[in-house]
Amino acid sequence: MTITWILALAFLGLGVAFYYTSQVKSIAPDLGIDDPEQKARLANIHGAIAKGAMAFLKQEYKFMAIFMAVFAVIIALFIDDHHTDYVNEGIYTAIAFLFGAIMSIASGYIGMKIATLGNVRTTVSANQSLAAAFKVAVNSGAVMGFTLVSLATLGLVIIYVALKAMMPAELPTHILMEVIAGFGLGGSSIALFARVGGGIFTKAADVGADLVGKVEAGIPEDDPRNPAVIADNVGDNVGDVAGMGADLFGSCAESTCAAMVISAIAFQGNVEALLFPIAITAIGIPVSLVTMFMVSAKTEAQVGPALKRMLIISSVLMAIVMYFATMQMVPATFEIAGQAYTNLGVYYCFLIGLIAGLVVGLMTEYYTSDAYAPVKELAKSCETGAATNIIFGLALGFKSSVGPYLAIAAAIYFPWMFAGMYGVAIASLGMLGTLVIALTIDAYGPVADNAGGIAEMAGMDKVVRERTDVLDAAGNTTAAMGKGFAIGAAILTSLALFAAFLTRADLLLKEKNGADFDLLGSINLLDPMVFTGLFVGAVLPSFFSAMTMKSVGSAAYDMIEEVRRQFRTIPGIMEGTGQPDYEQCVAISTKAAIREMVPPGILIIFAPLVCGYLFGIQAVAGLLAGSLVAGGVLAISSSNSGGAWDNAKKFVEAGNLGGKGSDVHKAAVVGDTVGDPLKDTSGPSLNILIKLSAILSLVFVPFFVQYGGVLV
Amino acid sequence: MTITWILALAFLGLGVAFYYTSQVKSIAPDLGIDDPEQKARLANIHGAIAKGAMAFLKQEYKFMAIFMAVFAVIIALFIDDHHTDYVNEGIYTAIAFLFGAIMSIASGYIGMKIATLGNVRTTVSANQSLAAAFKVAVNSGAVMGFTLVSLATLGLVIIYVALKAMMPAELPTHILMEVIAGFGLGGSSIALFARVGGGIFTKAADVGADLVGKVEAGIPEDDPRNPAVIADNVGDNVGDVAGMGADLFGSCAESTCAAMVISAIAFQGNVEALLFPIAITAIGIPVSLVTMFMVSAKTEAQVGPALKRMLIISSVLMAIVMYFATMQMVPATFEIAGQAYTNLGVYYCFLIGLIAGLVVGLMTEYYTSDAYAPVKELAKSCETGAATNIIFGLALGFKSSVGPYLAIAAAIYFPWMFAGMYGVAIASLGMLGTLVIALTIDAYGPVADNAGGIAEMAGMDKVVRERTDVLDAAGNTTAAMGKGFAIGAAILTSLALFAAFLTRADLLLKEKNGADFDLLGSINLLDPMVFTGLFVGAVLPSFFSAMTMKSVGSAAYDMIEEVRRQFRTIPGIMEGTGQPDYEQCVAISTKAAIREMVPPGILIIFAPLVCGYLFGIQAVAGLLAGSLVAGGVLAISSSNSGGAWDNAKKFVEAGNLGGKGSDVHKAAVVGDTVGDPLKDTSGPSLNILIKLSAILSLVFVPFFVQYGGVLV
Repeated sequence: MTITWILALAFLGLGVAFYYTSQVKSIAPDLGIDDPEQKARLANIHGAIAKGAMAFLKQEYKFMAIFMAVFAVIIALFIDDHHTDYVNEGIYTAIAFLFGAIMSIASGYIGMKIATLGNVRTTVSANQSLAAAFKVAVNSGAVMGFTLVSLATLGLVIIYVALKAMMPAELPTHILMEVIAGFGLGGSSIALFARVGGGIFTKAADVGADLVGKVEAGIPEDDPRNPAVIADNVGDNVGDVAGMGADLFGSCAESTCAAMVISAIAFQGNVEALLFPIAITAIGIPVSLVTMFMVSAKTEAQVGPALKRMLIISSVLMAIVMYFATMQMVPATFEIAGQAYTNLGVYYCFLIGLIAGLVVGLMTEYYTSDAYAPVKELAKSCETGAATNIIFGLALGFKSSVGPYLAIAAAIYFPWMFAGMYGVAIASLGMLGTLVIALTIDAYGPVADNAGGIAEMAGMDKVVRERTDVLDAAGNTTAAMGKGFAIGAAILTSLALFAAFLTRADLLLKEKNGADFDLLGSINLLDPMVFTGLFVGAVLPSFFSAMTMKSVGSAAYDMIEEVRRQFRTIPGIMEGTGQPDYEQCVAISTKAAIREMVPPGILIIFAPLVCGYLFGIQAVAGLLAGSLVAGGVLAISSSNSGGAWDNAKKFVEAGNLGGKGSDVHKAAVVGDTVGDPLKDTSGPSLNILIKLSAILSLVFVPFFVQYGGVLV
Repeated sequence: MTITWILALAFLGLGVAFYYTSQVKSIAPDLGIDDPEQKARLANIHGAIAKGAMAFLKQEYKFMAIFMAVFAVIIALFIDDHHTDYVNEGIYTAIAFLFGAIMSIASGYIGMKIATLGNVRTTVSANQSLAAAFKVAVNSGAVMGFTLVSLATLGLVIIYVALKAMMPAELPTHILMEVIAGFGLGGSSIALFARVGGGIFTKAADVGADLVGKVEAGIPEDDPRNPAVIADNVGDNVGDVAGMGADLFGSCAESTCAAMVISAIAFQGNVEALLFPIAITAIGIPVSLVTMFMVSAKTEAQVGPALKRMLIISSVLMAIVMYFATMQMVPATFEIAGQAYTNLGVYYCFLIGLIAGLVVGLMTEYYTSDAYAPVKELAKSCETGAATNIIFGLALGFKSSVGPYLAIAAAIYFPWMFAGMYGVAIASLGMLGTLVIALTIDAYGPVADNAGGIAEMAGMDKVVRERTDVLDAAGNTTAAMGKGFAIGAAILTSLALFAAFLTRADLLLKEKNGADFDLLGSINLLDPMVFTGLFVGAVLPSFFSAMTMKSVGSAAYDMIEEVRRQFRTIPGIMEGTGQPDYEQCVAISTKAAIREMVPPGILIIFAPLVCGYLFGIQAVAGLLAGSLVAGGVLAISSSNSGGAWDNAKKFVEAGNLGGKGSDVHKAAVVGDTVGDPLKDTSGPSLNILIKLSAILSLVFVPFFVQYGGVLV
């Protein structure tokens, strides 16, 4: 019964996504354009972006396919705890892993496909009216939102049903759930490459296009004479749509898996309670559908508030609906690890997570929107030059992490009190409670951004660009809020996974060493291995950030060389008579991104595995906790510094403090360029670092128990 | 007997300091200067710097006196555990606190006094020869090194003897040691204001002088027409001599206290073993004296290696001497908290700390000296502008924290294995084993820097400036190494204090709640309070850095306004006929520094106290651990980014990549300016954050036990 209605909601979501797709597609990509030359230009540009995006995905998928095959074999070989005759866990985990990876890829692919359809349609709709353009962009985003959440729900239910059918009936539920965690690992592994690779691609193209085009050649942004301009627009889709989507797909799958692993023993046999975490995500689908009906924007002033209203409405609806769902699905009282909890407590956990997510989002907005004091002050600091802009921006980022940290701390402590680590996992699902809408808004941003780029390149009327700029500006602020959510959810998810990891390890170690063995009591700050692990873990986020930041640098360098070469060798390129080789730039960004995403990927994947192999589970526990607490700060401050610099520059460009071309503006541009890799590459990639290392450790518990700690 | 020879060594150190003082003073401040006008200029400038430094100290001491009085009363009132009839611990702790503070102030005062005597004498000696100038600068530094270490030794012995005499004889040794920890708190509280206030002063003056003088008015660095130029030179003394000195005085006192508190029960009645931690520091005095005889530099190429050789020689000597001292003073086998250890193990702890310190220093050099690839690559990144310079510099800082973290991790784990937390405290004293020499080199730097400034301002021969530049450049590299030591020692010290804090709390809680009460077993990562504390603790360093960075900004802003005002209103100032008002600039920096150091000071002091009062000891434990592991990364990366930017700029100024005045140089200057507050204010101040919050928590254990945890 529970399975049936969850499946029904998932299919509803897919249906909605299909409906919005047809809505978007119903608009002709040359709607209202009469000039055949402009028609051709539009088709040309839009086709190049779509083609570039797909070319990147194709290369990335090739790499991912090899990685997935190799890693699935590793999982199958090394993850069998040999403690039962039931089943080889490794093989089933590998299946779940591959399925999770494929579902994540499918979500990203569909999101990207619709984004590259929606961009040009937003442009031509902006030729009609702001309201029409807004609708197209939001609908395109909604396709991504509904698809991703539906596929996550569907995937989790299918893998649950399939594995349950494949595995012996007498199997304890917790083993089934541990195997299902492979689904989360699959999703998260894809997210690693999508986030890091996409992040490097987009910023290499952006920085390369800006430095040679704007600075050296002195041509405006999004000028079609710039060979990197298509790569830049491709990058928005690759990084902000596919990368962000994979990240949040991972969070959703992982929080769900964490909650299910932790509650497996308590809810043994109670399918309704067991599937409650999946149900939370599923319930978001109809709630978001209702929300979508309640929002539109007709005037410039309505765009920003409309997006924010979507988040708030869906939060309120979720808070109401979830009360009844929780009371219905979760037993009135239950016990986990000897502690008694209530379903009302579980609802509070959900609610706290939901509210904390909103609070984090609003605080992020405060620090990154030019409507408030921090960004205004940052813009003013440009008056004394680029250096003070950087100093103030770094300080702003640091400071902006304090409030979210306190909010997330509350979302750790109180849920932990209400329902132990299960509560933390539910709080993280609460923070993801508005996932459909959050994704809709996130994907809306790059669609609007692309629409503006296309308008510029195709030489559309000034009013078109003005309208797309309005959409884009609103998208920037909500994108910052979205990043806040994503980090908050990543932190809570990782903590829940951390607990699930220790719970699983404790069970296995008890079987190996006798019931007296107490792993959970030994994860003590005064244990040398735990503390040393914690200490080393705290430096991992910085190491990882250094790698991704330098990767952007090297990738951008390749791009700069290529753009310079084209300006030099293609005759007539600056006069607009020679055709720049857009594809070559896309190919270079692609190659660089895929080359550069490997070392940070290796760091993320092997740090916990090697640590556990050499020093054992206590060291891994320390490592995870250290990288979690330190990584969150770095992620928030990187994102917010970058967002604030971006908006400070836009604030100056809007005519404040001297406006475009002034020295103040030049100083602001330096900040914006520094912020680019921070906010779009290294910052968001840290989400993956903390989540992936946690779920990896959870899945590899049998490996650690059997082979780990060789140096101890 | 033990006390006698430790005192003898302390007095030897003071004697040596006195000898070096007379050596420095024996040089006439106008040696070899015949031109009466230049004589007057020299006297004028040098007098203004000395006067400015003292004016700042006077204001700072006024503030400190009030703070000390208030805080001593708080200590006396709130730190009595009431668990014995022996004694009111609070009053004795307050005495130790005041004494520690006074000793720290005395060290800083003497160091600063000699630095302001040595600077002009280095200038005039450079007129004679490089070797003579080198000797004056090193001797000036040595006064600081020997004075500070001797006073720390002397202070600890005196407070031990005095409190032992004042307190009842039947008192358990551990209570005596806990009271003595007040000495460390006193030293560290002074360090807070000296480091933060000094750091803000020096960078406000530096940034202010550069932005208006160099950038706006286009006059060279150290030009006497710049009203902020004296304040800039005062700042070097205030920040790098007094601030650094107070920081390391604190580390030395705190590590010693931590080791004594932890070992108090084990060594009850064995004075020799009890005073072993003090003896380590005392033994450094004759070892450093021998080292001083073995070093000189005659040619340019010898200066840098000579400084490095000092560190290495004194390390080797310490390693040898300490073997015999440890075998003699520490019992062959002993027990702490039920674990058996050996004196050979204790020696290994010392050795590991010593070696780790050297390794951290050398790694710091690798990342910040322009002799190696990282800084060269950073300089090259300036070719694509200021933004890439910043991105690469931030990445460099992040990456550079990995190696030191692994080295420090080894210096945590192995000593912990060899001798528990006592071993970690000994390792931290090992890292401080070359403290006299490290301080000598550290104080040498600003003396050489000032000497160059004076040469420039007084219009000395070009060769003088060239020679002081050689001395200064060597000092820059060793200063970076010194910062590496300081951070490493701060981390180990804090960890040892953390253990001492928990040991003390456990004892008291057992008395309160019965012997079954197990605090040490409850400092578990899976305890919600501990984890939430850890999480919030991890954001404190960023918050603190944001505050200090912004403080530099506001203080620099005041300075900029003042310099602009003087350029505008003083007639003939730009022609050199009008006299700039140097004192006013010093006064402004002083006022701003003292105003701005209060909020970060409040954060450091009240974060652990409020946390403990509201949430209890588990939360404080988490908070300390979180801020420790995250703070170290930020401290190292801030210092190294700043150091690397500084040297990348110098590398360009040496004629590489286009040299001075090129676009590359402009980009390099932006990096240098951004790095200034990072490397001289916020980075080093983080040492204080992590140490002070730890010793504060140790001293306030009775407060937490009696009043804490009201919300739990």
